[in-house]
Formats: sequence, C-alpha cells, structure tokens
Amino acid sequence: MTAAAETRRDRITKLRGELATHGLDAALLTHAPNIRYLSGFSGSSGMLVVLPEEAGLITDFRYEQQAGEEVDGVAEILVARDGLSSMLAERLKDRSQVRKVGFEAGYVSVRDRRELGERCSSVVWDDLPQTVERLRAVKDADELASIDRAVQVAERALEETLATVDEDVTELELATELRHRLALQGSTGEPFETIVASGERTALPHASPSERSFREGDLLLLDFGATIDGYCSDITRTVVLGTPTPWQREIHARVLEAQEAALAAIRPEGAAADVDRAARASLEAAELGDRFGHSVGHGIGLEVHEGPRLFRKSKDTLEAGNVVTVEPGVYLAGKGGVRVEEDVLVVEAGHRVLTCSSTALREL
Amino acid sequence: MTAAAETRRDRITKLRGELATHGLDAALLTHAPNIRYLSGFSGSSGMLVVLPEEAGLITDFRYEQQAGEEVDGVAEILVARDGLSSMLAERLKDRSQVRKVGFEAGYVSVRDRRELGERCSSVVWDDLPQTVERLRAVKDADELASIDRAVQVAERALEETLATVDEDVTELELATELRHRLALQGSTGEPFETIVASGERTALPHASPSERSFREGDLLLLDFGATIDGYCSDITRTVVLGTPTPWQREIHARVLEAQEAALAAIRPEGAAADVDRAARASLEAAELGDRFGHSVGHGIGLEVHEGPRLFRKSKDTLEAGNVVTVEPGVYLAGKGGVRVEEDVLVVEAGHRVLTCSSTALREL
Repeated sequence: MTAAAETRRDRITKLRGELATHGLDAALLTHAPNIRYLSGFSGSSGMLVVLPEEAGLITDFRYEQQAGEEVDGVAEILVARDGLSSMLAERLKDRSQVRKVGFEAGYVSVRDRRELGERCSSVVWDDLPQTVERLRAVKDADELASIDRAVQVAERALEETLATVDEDVTELELATELRHRLALQGSTGEPFETIVASGERTALPHASPSERSFREGDLLLLDFGATIDGYCSDITRTVVLGTPTPWQREIHARVLEAQEAALAAIRPEGAAADVDRAARASLEAAELGDRFGHSVGHGIGLEVHEGPRLFRKSKDTLEAGNVVTVEPGVYLAGKGGVRVEEDVLVVEAGHRVLTCSSTALREL
Repeated sequence: MTAAAETRRDRITKLRGELATHGLDAALLTHAPNIRYLSGFSGSSGMLVVLPEEAGLITDFRYEQQAGEEVDGVAEILVARDGLSSMLAERLKDRSQVRKVGFEAGYVSVRDRRELGERCSSVVWDDLPQTVERLRAVKDADELASIDRAVQVAERALEETLATVDEDVTELELATELRHRLALQGSTGEPFETIVASGERTALPHASPSERSFREGDLLLLDFGATIDGYCSDITRTVVLGTPTPWQREIHARVLEAQEAALAAIRPEGAAADVDRAARASLEAAELGDRFGHSVGHGIGLEVHEGPRLFRKSKDTLEAGNVVTVEPGVYLAGKGGVRVEEDVLVVEAGHRVLTCSSTALREL
C-alpha cells in the first residue's frame, strides 16, 4: 500500500471514530470531493460506503479499471450493473448490524433520498456529521504541495498571458489565451469559469468574458485558477492598460489596505468572521464599505469553495493548515472595479501568502 | 421585447398550463438549465418562481446587471441580500393564494428542501411535473441553429487538431491542443471533460487524458464537444496512427454497422429503447454484444445529457425536434476500443445527421 493510500485509510478511520460518537453504524458518501478525499477515486459516478470493518467504492463499469488503480486497496471496488443504489442495497442486505446510516443531506437530492429509502428499507437514515469537510479544511503536506503547484502554474500562466495584452484584444480572446496557458503549464481542469473583464465591466464581480476590446486607460481584472492533482488555486489580479487615473490608483490602494488588514487577522484560533470584518472596516474607513458586496474569502482545496468560510456571519475558527483566499474588492458601477485575491496558508505564526506575483497596480 | 424573450414567455405560459392540470399554484425552478431555458438567465446563482400572474428571477448582487440584460422583462429581477430562499419566502408571504408549489425533487438537496419548508411554512410542496424537461427535449429553430454551430465548431477544431498529431505527442498534449482549438473556434465552455485516449487506453470508455505518448499503430479516440449560446455538441471519432491492423479494421467496421442500424431506428414516434436495441442487436450478431457496455445515446441541448434517453429500458418516445447522440462502441480490454458518435436530429422523415466529418477509420 502506498503512502497516499495509508493517508486515506487514516482518514476513513477518523470518520469511523466520529460515526460511533454520533450513534451511526455506517456512512454513505456521495459528494465527489469527499469520495476522492477518502478513497482517491476521481471518477464522476461513485458512492463510498464506510462500514465498521470494511469500505466499498461503488461505481459503474466505465470506471472499473480507474477505480482499481486510484483506490489502491483502501476500499473494495463494487461495479454496479443496475444503478449504484441497487448495488448499495445489495451490499447492506446481509449486514444486519448496519441499521443507522449517515448520508450527506446537503448533496443528496430529495428524489435520490426517496430511492435510498425504498431500496434500503431496513436502514434508518440520518444526517452525516461534517467530519469529512472538517478534515478537508486542514491540509497535510501532500495537499499543500499540490496547492502550491496550482498557485505556481496559475501565476506562470498569468505572466505569459499579460505579455500578450494589447489594445484591440478582446476579453474573450485574452480569456482563451489564459486558459490555454494554464493547460500548457499543467493545469488539468478549470476550477471555475475564467473571468476577464475590462473597463467599466470590471465593476461586475462575476463578469463573463465578452467581445469588448481593451482600450488605453482600461482596468483589466483577471480571476482564474489551476487544478493540480484535483487541488485548486484561485487568484485575482487587476492591472491597467497605460497610466492609471487618480481614481484607479485610489481604489486600488484602498483594496490593498483592506487586504493587509484582512491578512493581519489570519492566525490559528482566529475567527473567520474577523478576517471579513477587518477588510470591511478598512474599506468603510475609506467610505467604500458599500462598494464591497461579497465576502472576503473562502477555503480552497479539492473544491474551489470549501471551509473555512470567511464571511461576516461565519462561525468557523481558523486552524493551522487551512488554505483560504483573501479577495477584497471595490466596484464603482459604470466606472470600474478592482479586486486583488491572494491564496493564503494559516500557519502557527499567523499566515503565509502562497501567491508570489506582485499585487501592485501594474501598468501594461 | 425581443423574439427570444417572447419565446421564453411562451415557454412559461406552457408551464403555467401544466401547473393548473397538476393542481399546483406555482413552480419553483432551481436547476440552472431549466432557469436558463425559461428566463434566459445564465448565472450560477438563481431561482425562478413562476406564479399565476407573474414570474420572479431571484439572484444575488453579483448577477444583478447580467440578470437584467439576459432576462429582458420575462421575469422581475429580485436581488437577494440574505440568501435566495429568504427572498423567496418574502415574495410568497403576501400571496396567500399560492399554497401548493411544485419543486424539482431531482435537483433540490434534502438540506435545501428542509430550508424551504422552514422559511415558507405556509407552502405545501409537491413534485413539479417534468414539463420543462419535456419542452427542452424538442428544439426550436434558434436552438437548432446553436447546436448546429456547436457541431461545426467542434468539427473544425477536430480537423485542426488531427493535423498536429504525431508520434511522441501525449494524450494530455493533444487534449490541450483540442481544447484550445475549440475555444479559438468560439466555444464558450467545455460541455464535459475532453477525452483523448490512445493505444490500449481506448478500451476505457471514460479515460482521462494521460501522459502516454502516441505510437505507430495506435488507435486514437477523441470524445469532445463545444458550447455555443449554452448549447452543446458531443462528438467522438476514432482514428489510427499509421496503417490499421485487421482487428482494428474489424471492430471499427462493426461499430459503423451498429451505428447504421441505430440511425435506421430513429424516427418520430419511434421508441428510444429501439435505437439502443438496434445497435446492440447488430453488435450481438458480430459476437461483440458484451463489449458494448454503455447505452447508445442521449439527448443534447443546454445539457450534454438530457432527454430523450437512448438506453435499453428507456420509456421515451422520439419526436421531431429531438437532438440525440448515437455512439455505439466496442472495447477490447488490454487491446483497444472504437467509438463513433454522431449528433442526430429527429425529423418528420426520420433523421438528419448533424455531424459532417467522416466516420471512416482515418489513417493519420
């Protein structure tokens, strides 16, 4: 068994421990990132059932070989011939000691829950505790290495792409270029739709790239990421084409101050809500609080949005090993906006910024 | 109001008609492709509530401007400040005639369903009939034009990409090239993960591109698609590097025969299951039935898998205006596989194949 498989076996053991304290006999995982975290399986069709003495990865014939290679003995591979839940029912049938099973209420549809109830009629279903999500929020060395590489890949692609910016290039063209550079650098997928916005469109926090061409004096906002071994990076930079105007310099400087304030609030046992509050207070002091409509950040890992959540009402507490984005922004409708997003690791001493590229207002 | 907006208004009217026959006072749509189909809104955060006399598109502040532009008067834009479902509750509060609301049981998680129950405590929730899915399965002229363009874009990208194939290119490199060509041709997103498999890996129906380099004599299987205006294409071609061996020729010929048989079964009022059966019978006659493990096809449109479903136990009936894939395959473990996938429109006279590129076993 490889070291990676040992790690996954340990994670499953931790989950089993929590099941016992919640009075659950077993766990059914259906959320793909949770399945991947516990078993290594990265296919799109799977269920992981964790029983007291065994674990089974149910998939369909398309993924039989891949599942065997990826799961590497951590769970038995069960190939469903007639739907995953009918295979699950078959598996549970002879295990009469398994009565109470935890399921992921946030990821199972009402229809699928009904089907589980019908097929596994002797099972009592209850909510699975957030054990896997909590484990996932604290990254180990291998996970950090993957995220680090995802950050480096994204930053290299950014540098190459910025070198191609010119007047008359469109947002869509630059987004296509950036996506290609990400893939050439080794990113195996896009964790989210790449955002390239220019001019007044930078004031839209979620602009899809359009046919708009760049013009002298434009702000350019790029929000993008890479995926390495399933782990994401998520970076935003705002630059200017030519010489920035005073208002562009002004809001960019205020965003950087908000970011400094947010970073200073990041430390183990700190409240996630305080990070958001720090950025917001900084922008409010500059009378820009109402131009910052979204939360300051979120965890990244196997998903581009995961725990801990950095928003005003978050109840999460930071821990060493969390990796979060810090992304304050200021958006002036009809004029333009600035957002700067760093990927940040929580360490014992406070925080370490993983992103290396300059956050200054670069003039292209 | 634009013609596109009129079309969407008509679709909402049809949905209202079905609500009445099901004893529902309103519909809550949460599945993004259904929301887009009815309202035009393409953002990732939305709910569409269809009431007897009005419709509301609930989104968050990030999509306020985009929603206004896309929805174009078909529904009122409601910007949620504190979560979409709390805005929904507020909206329903003053409308006491709205008691029974249909929701999409296949797309609402158990947790979200609970939240709806708590927030909208006077509502009786029931399953929404599959009206929108049924409407979506029959494409109008504008939708067909988008799918046609998605097919053309994909085929142009394929031709450009095949011209770059050489020994020592890896699957990952060719997949990156193909994805870039798709984007340069105008595809705004990848409907699914591009598959490039070579050699014995072509026997894996869902192979992720690997670091394997191509070698003389390899089969090469490419399964990919483009997205235009939200509409997908989905095409597979299998080619050979050099001169094919007899077994490669043999299984390719049998796959083409299975495809001919499947196409011949496509006509209005035909059973979707018969299309699958025809392909399967053809391969069984060649003693290859057990090497064809997946279903023969599926509808494409705003989603890459939608109705009608072409599998053995499908209860769907074909209608003029359906667009489906036809993708028989033969997979010989450890040796290699062949799949050929066409996109096909059901027309009054039978069918029309939308894909133009040759299905012959091309020698590169």
